[in-house]
Amino acid sequence: MTRRKKVRIKDIAKELNISYSAVSQAINHPREVSRQTVKNVLAKCQELGYVKILSNKKRKGAIGIIAQDIYNLAIGEFYNFVLKGVLEECQKRKIRLEVEFLPEGGLPLMISNNTVDGVLLFGKITKDLALALKQKGLPMLLVGHPIPHVELHTVMVDGRAGMHDVTRHLLDLGHKKIALIYSKPIYDYITADRMEGYRTALTEARLKIRDEYIVEAYWCEPISAYNATKSLLKMKDRPTAIIYMNDTMAYRSYKAFAEEGVKIPKDISIAGFDDMPLPDYVWPFKPTLTSVGVDREMIGKTSVDVLMNLTENPSKLALRYTLPVELRVKESTAKT
Amino acid sequence: MTRRKKVRIKDIAKELNISYSAVSQAINHPREVSRQTVKNVLAKCQELGYVKILSNKKRKGAIGIIAQDIYNLAIGEFYNFVLKGVLEECQKRKIRLEVEFLPEGGLPLMISNNTVDGVLLFGKITKDLALALKQKGLPMLLVGHPIPHVELHTVMVDGRAGMHDVTRHLLDLGHKKIALIYSKPIYDYITADRMEGYRTALTEARLKIRDEYIVEAYWCEPISAYNATKSLLKMKDRPTAIIYMNDTMAYRSYKAFAEEGVKIPKDISIAGFDDMPLPDYVWPFKPTLTSVGVDREMIGKTSVDVLMNLTENPSKLALRYTLPVELRVKESTAKT
Repeated sequence: MTRRKKVRIKDIAKELNISYSAVSQAINHPREVSRQTVKNVLAKCQELGYVKILSNKKRKGAIGIIAQDIYNLAIGEFYNFVLKGVLEECQKRKIRLEVEFLPEGGLPLMISNNTVDGVLLFGKITKDLALALKQKGLPMLLVGHPIPHVELHTVMVDGRAGMHDVTRHLLDLGHKKIALIYSKPIYDYITADRMEGYRTALTEARLKIRDEYIVEAYWCEPISAYNATKSLLKMKDRPTAIIYMNDTMAYRSYKAFAEEGVKIPKDISIAGFDDMPLPDYVWPFKPTLTSVGVDREMIGKTSVDVLMNLTENPSKLALRYTLPVELRVKESTAKT
Repeated sequence: MTRRKKVRIKDIAKELNISYSAVSQAINHPREVSRQTVKNVLAKCQELGYVKILSNKKRKGAIGIIAQDIYNLAIGEFYNFVLKGVLEECQKRKIRLEVEFLPEGGLPLMISNNTVDGVLLFGKITKDLALALKQKGLPMLLVGHPIPHVELHTVMVDGRAGMHDVTRHLLDLGHKKIALIYSKPIYDYITADRMEGYRTALTEARLKIRDEYIVEAYWCEPISAYNATKSLLKMKDRPTAIIYMNDTMAYRSYKAFAEEGVKIPKDISIAGFDDMPLPDYVWPFKPTLTSVGVDREMIGKTSVDVLMNLTENPSKLALRYTLPVELRVKESTAKT
């Protein structure tokens, strides 16, 4: 991990050829100086990678979670376990935790009231919000979802490696016609990353990538995965394996196979991504689903760890902290 | 709503025949006065129902959620929607929200750091924690789960009425042999309240309450409801209807009926409680389940509303705010 020299207020002042106190005022009391000075200072802060470090005395002993999609703070099947990890880690470290739902963007209360030492951004957030927060100079971490062309520290899982491994697993079982049901939008970082893993594995195996085997669905509408599955099963040159970009899309599709009389894994192999535990009241889907294990509580714990480090040792470089994933072979994949 | 005269520091001082400042110190800076004084003052505060009111200047603009079971803050199927309601209400009112997982009890950080104006206690908490928090004199609200013999403001749903309504519905359909699968422990307030509704409806219909039709299971182990269902189906004098104390126990039991070749609602009627929405990736259980609708987001919104009121107008009387529930008849109940 490369760590460059810390940028200090005096460095900003020197670069702009203005006084130390003018820079300090622009950062800490922007209404006390001219708009142009604030603008120049913030631009220079961003250019040089200045991060405001609170003295121990000024520390709040609290961190925050901000999400623009309320399902990432409550209910959602992925981030609920990430939140569990964060709650447990905060409890262990005796850090308080604020949570804020910010549907419209704008400045979060925890930022304008200055009540936290750093912020975790849960899930997809708009580029505008990310840039607005970045300007505040507070330690900040994207959790789960990078934003293209915005340099921010990010904790994520290795989607590419996971998708590569599961595709490789199917190739090893002799499959040559491997379809992929992905989630739109195709340019989304998570989707693009996972698709890259699929393509790489096929290319390594010297197989042609067949566009008709790559079918669009949408995470938020699991029925779309069911429809995509039906369309694949109706093809003349039907695939012998289907990979779903997450487990929920795969689970929603079990019914499509049953309706078409296609047996898993005898007639077709299927695999998911996330290895998501089902709620207790749902009987396990049979056959059990081969998937890529993602330790979501570990994402939460690691995020707290990285954020707390950033509050003490800010890094100018926006790093990506990628957590490993693990192929978990179960009953839904077999030799073709 | 009865509202008594506000208890002030001077009232406590008068009762104990000590100075105003001694009482104030005991409440605000307990280490500055003798232990005995603190003890006497806190006991008197509790007796008279003193609640610390913050001046607007001292307000934090934040409330907190504390839970001893992490599933009530993340993952859990009931409180996730309550949390959603709280998050949305806080966003609307521009109140910050702290959340804290407190597995061992002890003093929460948000209390010892004095960062919130009031606290919501999510789900079941120990009597010890409730009493310790109550002594702090901060506005406080139990959400969802009363604690017997501890007088605290409580927001809850009308479990008794809901269970009465669903039992009445089955009686109206001609059922006379109505079983109940409840969750242990039987002395838990939620269980006792719902069971009371069941008993009352049967008694009103002049039916004998048959102990063998009241079978124990456990919310946290839905398989126990499946087993309880099997035991009821194996009885010589089998019930014609089964009520489950929540939906998850009912859903887990669908398989038991299928295995025994018992058709719902032709051979038996069943009903649940909560009218819980299923996650998107689970196909709806068929036939759809008659249940008692509980608006969980409304529990969250109401809790914020009541708590904010309490921070401004403390009530000495610990009130119970009971939200109505609604019978929702679907396909799983029919005439016998």
